Amino acid sequence: MVIGHECAGVIEEVGSKVKDLVAGDRVALEPGISCWKCTHCKQGRYNLCPDMKFFATPPVHGSLANQVVHPADLCFKLPENVSLEEGAMCEPLSVGVHACRRADIGPETNVLVMGAGPIGLVTMLAARAFGAPRILIVDVDDSRLTVAKDLGADAVIKVSTNIQDVDVEVGLIQKAMGGGIDVSFDCAGFNKTMTTALTATRPGGKVCLVGMGHHEMTVPLTPAAAREVDVVGIFRYKNTWPLCLEFLRSGKIDVKPLITHRFGFSQKEVEEAFETSARGGNAIKVMFNL
Amino acid sequence: MVIGHECAGVIEEVGSKVKDLVAGDRVALEPGISCWKCTHCKQGRYNLCPDMKFFATPPVHGSLANQVVHPADLCFKLPENVSLEEGAMCEPLSVGVHACRRADIGPETNVLVMGAGPIGLVTMLAARAFGAPRILIVDVDDSRLTVAKDLGADAVIKVSTNIQDVDVEVGLIQKAMGGGIDVSFDCAGFNKTMTTALTATRPGGKVCLVGMGHHEMTVPLTPAAAREVDVVGIFRYKNTWPLCLEFLRSGKIDVKPLITHRFGFSQKEVEEAFETSARGGNAIKVMFNL
Amino acid sequence: MVIGHECAGVIEEVGSKVKDLVAGDRVALEPGISCWKCTHCKQGRYNLCPDMKFFATPPVHGSLANQVVHPADLCFKLPENVSLEEGAMCEPLSVGVHACRRADIGPETNVLVMGAGPIGLVTMLAARAFGAPRILIVDVDDSRLTVAKDLGADAVIKVSTNIQDVDVEVGLIQKAMGGGIDVSFDCAGFNKTMTTALTATRPGGKVCLVGMGHHEMTVPLTPAAAREVDVVGIFRYKNTWPLCLEFLRSGKIDVKPLITHRFGFSQKEVEEAFETSARGGNAIKVMFNL
Amino acid sequence: MVIGHECAGVIEEVGSKVKDLVAGDRVALEPGISCWKCTHCKQGRYNLCPDMKFFATPPVHGSLANQVVHPADLCFKLPENVSLEEGAMCEPLSVGVHACRRADIGPETNVLVMGAGPIGLVTMLAARAFGAPRILIVDVDDSRLTVAKDLGADAVIKVSTNIQDVDVEVGLIQKAMGGGIDVSFDCAGFNKTMTTALTATRPGGKVCLVGMGHHEMTVPLTPAAAREVDVVGIFRYKNTWPLCLEFLRSGKIDVKPLITHRFGFSQKEVEEAFETSARGGNAIKVMFNL
Repeated sequence: MVIGHECAGVIEEVGSKVKDLVAGDRVALEPGISCWKCTHCKQGRYNLCPDMKFFATPPVHGSLANQVVHPADLCFKLPENVSLEEGAMCEPLSVGVHACRRADIGPETNVLVMGAGPIGLVTMLAARAFGAPRILIVDVDDSRLTVAKDLGADAVIKVSTNIQDVDVEVGLIQKAMGGGIDVSFDCAGFNKTMTTALTATRPGGKVCLVGMGHHEMTVPLTPAAAREVDVVGIFRYKNTWPLCLEFLRSGKIDVKPLITHRFGFSQKEVEEAFETSARGGNAIKVMFNL
Repeated sequence: MVIGHECAGVIEEVGSKVKDLVAGDRVALEPGISCWKCTHCKQGRYNLCPDMKFFATPPVHGSLANQVVHPADLCFKLPENVSLEEGAMCEPLSVGVHACRRADIGPETNVLVMGAGPIGLVTMLAARAFGAPRILIVDVDDSRLTVAKDLGADAVIKVSTNIQDVDVEVGLIQKAMGGGIDVSFDCAGFNKTMTTALTATRPGGKVCLVGMGHHEMTVPLTPAAAREVDVVGIFRYKNTWPLCLEFLRSGKIDVKPLITHRFGFSQKEVEEAFETSARGGNAIKVMFNL
Repeated sequence: MVIGHECAGVIEEVGSKVKDLVAGDRVALEPGISCWKCTHCKQGRYNLCPDMKFFATPPVHGSLANQVVHPADLCFKLPENVSLEEGAMCEPLSVGVHACRRADIGPETNVLVMGAGPIGLVTMLAARAFGAPRILIVDVDDSRLTVAKDLGADAVIKVSTNIQDVDVEVGLIQKAMGGGIDVSFDCAGFNKTMTTALTATRPGGKVCLVGMGHHEMTVPLTPAAAREVDVVGIFRYKNTWPLCLEFLRSGKIDVKPLITHRFGFSQKEVEEAFETSARGGNAIKVMFNL
Repeated sequence: MVIGHECAGVIEEVGSKVKDLVAGDRVALEPGISCWKCTHCKQGRYNLCPDMKFFATPPVHGSLANQVVHPADLCFKLPENVSLEEGAMCEPLSVGVHACRRADIGPETNVLVMGAGPIGLVTMLAARAFGAPRILIVDVDDSRLTVAKDLGADAVIKVSTNIQDVDVEVGLIQKAMGGGIDVSFDCAGFNKTMTTALTATRPGGKVCLVGMGHHEMTVPLTPAAAREVDVVGIFRYKNTWPLCLEFLRSGKIDVKPLITHRFGFSQKEVEEAFETSARGGNAIKVMFNL
């Protein structure tokens, strides 16, 4: 089976009913095809469609190929100043954008991001583009925090993996924020990160659970609920490509620093690319140029 | 210290600036006095006010007394057909009403209630009054379920306290509902009830955590988040008295069956009342007539 | 061209991919087929789809025929206790349901309805089913008001067509409501009805403009805006059939009294039916039984 | 009576219960004192409070004085990099901020502003700070449009005062926007500006009526309602000072160019100031330094 679901490319041919695209257009692809017959689709939450056909989700092939056939309404034309590489980044960026929408980020929302991996970074970039005045990002790794700071975090804090440190760290986080935390994104999804997020967020705020570290979680959910700290989750994204492209066009978001490695599509290079990605290190996003 | 925060009474005297109440008026009392200076108060979430003065929360005395002094805007005149006893029930009913508002209950919301204790029952009654077309209530106790059925539950299911039974019970619950569960209220707040609620609710639905059985919870939060099942909590209530009184006036809610025992205010009767309440048994709400 | 867009019928045949319906099923038909490719469709507002194919809107034929071909996801199975006639009433009822959703009607919304014609009546019935505690309906015609009262209006007021009477009538309306009007539905859509609605609604309330009497309107929009009385409109409906059928099934809404005349489908009867409908009089809805 | 309601100053003395302010603090003043007992106040819409005591609204004196006594919770400390003059601008800016909140402006909202007077300009600045990607501003006056362009409008269009030109001008506006207009702010409030706003806005969009040129309006309200273009109004503002100060602190909004004239507080200068303001010309905001 072919994998891959983050991609952009050049149109080779369009169907006879397609009006808004022509061969040669550069487009970014939204990877999921929903049914448009179920309640979720009809109510505008098509990301929850149970019959979604999604790139690289069996039996549907992915997009890591020289050619893919895809519905025209899921191919979004790139602005002139947006490259194919940046276009492919609409997919991970969409996760951050969808999270920001669900958590209702705006110019009055001070934000905590737990985890400075790729998802934490795109969430931070999206929160900034939605107007968040102050963003604090937390991780266990110094080099990730350096990247986060370079990408625009207002403050970074290194934390441990030890659950006993939560109270002390929450104190540090709240002090560094210098005011209430309105929304926390847990982009790691472990007991400790979620406990920190639930505890640090102000009464009436929100925690958006994005990461999926643990399946079952042991967290202080009751005291959070009793402060009306709501927990919202995300599943993929919906209607995010136009906004992502606008963010890239206007420069509100620059995804280029997230693309740390580039490879061709020869057997050897592909193997090397997967090794680079698996190794982690300073790799954030590894891009194939086909 | 005086305890008590569910009460109604007759006005003896009003301050010189009070226009809408006179001595002799029968009123129900909202027990919390908020500061109206903090951000929460100003944004309409006064229940989250950190400086709230609340009946029976030290150092504030409660309402189990022959006389209390209380701000006029927190004294709500009873409709003619609503008794003092029913008026006192506005307080527990407010918990259910606030939960229904936070979970956005309406004529399209099929509801699961975990727990048929007093809070489960008022939540069920409130959900019905908000228009919920189908309400299923779950408990470990047969007699409680009988009460719930008598009070209008569409279906009741007896469950165990064994966490291993969750999957089977979720199956039974979903089958009994005959369609998706849009909102689950966990009015117990234990690992098992919350696990059931999170698992049984449809993608895109909500779980409202009302009960406070466990402080820390071990629950499958990640898969719920990944189906965009949101978790909302409640802290007390706000702006609920007028609506509760309207529900009582119109007969949309009948709280009389919830008042299972009545006592006078002699030393002996008070002791007996607390014993009755503590004993549980068939007691739902125990009322003092002063 | 064939007209008609309010209909229900029995399925003769289903396509090979249709799973949830079989020949013989009784269904109500939602008349519009939207594109599911435009922004409106994807965001859950498919009623605003510019490429909607709608019964009886050229070049699309209507449903006043012995047979129609229609997508399965727009055919909604009737509950056992709902007749075909009632099923056909889902269409006009959907207008009221959509209006109530847009105006956010619930158990705390006191409602004014301007106009007791068919649309005013279905809006009133829907508002009641959404929980509106008090509904006042206004018309220029005594017999219409009698029907409205019989169908459940809490109060009715006869008004004039003279714009000078607005202030006096608003006074009568507010007095009869005995409290603020939270939402007004203008189901007529004339300068006078809209002026009354805008003036009578409390600060922070809503006016939903449903009727289309005048195209251009001369109304006191500025003072309404300065009291934050919002004006919301409706275009058809979306996702209303399941809720309408639930209202009919549960008896929360009874549409049978709205069906005042019934005709067969012979040439003579059809002519007679249209004459009856055009004549007005006591006709509310005229039904063909094919 | 003393007039004036846009002001900032230095604290001379604080009451004994005031914790967060001390003599010498520089603060901006929110001018309205609401009752905190009515339904509007309790529901977080205190701007609609019928008992509001507002600067310069009889019998309440205004703030154009050397000293004013004001509740501490309505005095907002200025960030170090925000001057008293800028602090005083929080009041007009609050109108724009409140309008943007009511119209739900964000990074996906393309905005049309009708009128480039002071209110149009603060609305434009606020919309930009809320993330509006594209803002088009329209006026009858070339010099005002030049100011708007300098302050950051993406495009400006000069229009006539002739109502017959609406269709042509709407065409120009939509072409210049190069996509749908999601929200229009009518900061003038005349038949023509409102007709343009209602017509130019995309289906499902919003028109926010801010200006108050005409009391009664003759506008195509029905076709707008039939495209679900909602009309929302504003009355003053609520909870806007902290956000305004954050916008000023961060530089997201620069109000300094709006302060075109400065005067002292001698008899002669005051007269001159009012003449300057009344004359219009290139005066936007005229500031007194006391």
